[in-house]
Amino acid sequence: MKEPPLPEITSRRMLASSRLFSIEELNLRFSNGVERVYERLPVRGHPGIIVVAVNDRREVMLIREYAAGFHERQLSLPKGGAQFGEPLELAADRELKEEIGFGAREVRFVKRLNLAPGHMGFTINVMFARDLYPMRLPGDEPEPIEVVPWPVDALDDLIHGGEFNEARAIAALTLTRKFLEQG
Amino acid sequence: MKEPPLPEITSRRMLASSRLFSIEELNLRFSNGVERVYERLPVRGHPGIIVVAVNDRREVMLIREYAAGFHERQLSLPKGGAQFGEPLELAADRELKEEIGFGAREVRFVKRLNLAPGHMGFTINVMFARDLYPMRLPGDEPEPIEVVPWPVDALDDLIHGGEFNEARAIAALTLTRKFLEQG
Repeated sequence: MKEPPLPEITSRRMLASSRLFSIEELNLRFSNGVERVYERLPVRGHPGIIVVAVNDRREVMLIREYAAGFHERQLSLPKGGAQFGEPLELAADRELKEEIGFGAREVRFVKRLNLAPGHMGFTINVMFARDLYPMRLPGDEPEPIEVVPWPVDALDDLIHGGEFNEARAIAALTLTRKFLEQG
Repeated sequence: MKEPPLPEITSRRMLASSRLFSIEELNLRFSNGVERVYERLPVRGHPGIIVVAVNDRREVMLIREYAAGFHERQLSLPKGGAQFGEPLELAADRELKEEIGFGAREVRFVKRLNLAPGHMGFTINVMFARDLYPMRLPGDEPEPIEVVPWPVDALDDLIHGGEFNEARAIAALTLTRKFLEQG
């Protein structure tokens, strides 16, 4: 099937903008003449990273921290944003030092993911880290983060269980599974 | 480690609200006394679903459609929202009829995922569908959706490749993999 041209953005305007988010309205005309009004959240800020880090006991380093979207603590992977000009590998290493108290001698980029591309421009970069060593940097977390090492051999229980529900984190573990199982 | 109490929401206000989105500001006091201002996108609308549907040729039914967040067409899974009072299984069956032109005689709920729980209350329900039969319902799509059947035996190429980048969709395929491989 030959793809039709993309819709034309006939007009756009920012409906709202806060410290973290913007809401943009798009008027679109599709190639078949259909017109629609869409809303989207444009990307803001620096690139995000999510880190799958494995220690020398073959455990993935999970964290449990406060999630304001649900007003509860949730189990997930270390995450954060790169600082201005900071390479993703260094950002991953820094976030690990801040969130779990370990640095990584080896960090690699795996894949860039999006979240809800129909409505949001946000992306997050999946990073894999190993060869960890104890090193803590002060972070901007409002309270200490609980670190939960999880055995690689029990990843299926985690992914299918009821306590680990973040799509980005499940995708990140899937994408790094072959590295994790190599040890 | 004994979990400390959740932070207290000392005040909250809606910063902005559009047809699809709201931005809420929370003033939080953590149990250690630290105070912070957070922003989040509260959940809006009816429950969302994402559907992994497999046909009798052992192909997963993918779609390629316009993604306003990136102003490009992207490959993903059928998705949509349940209507008021509509069970998730019926919503999945209806979305398949609208988006790929097939109904499903068997639909099951797999897991509820979240997207970015630190900042958003949004969730999406992963549904698995099989025993498909041709049936088209008119949908609200502005242009026809391209349907891309993908062999179950080539799912690793899809997940690790450069054309399939949505965290929710990769997580949904991971969560249904054992059903897919049963055929």
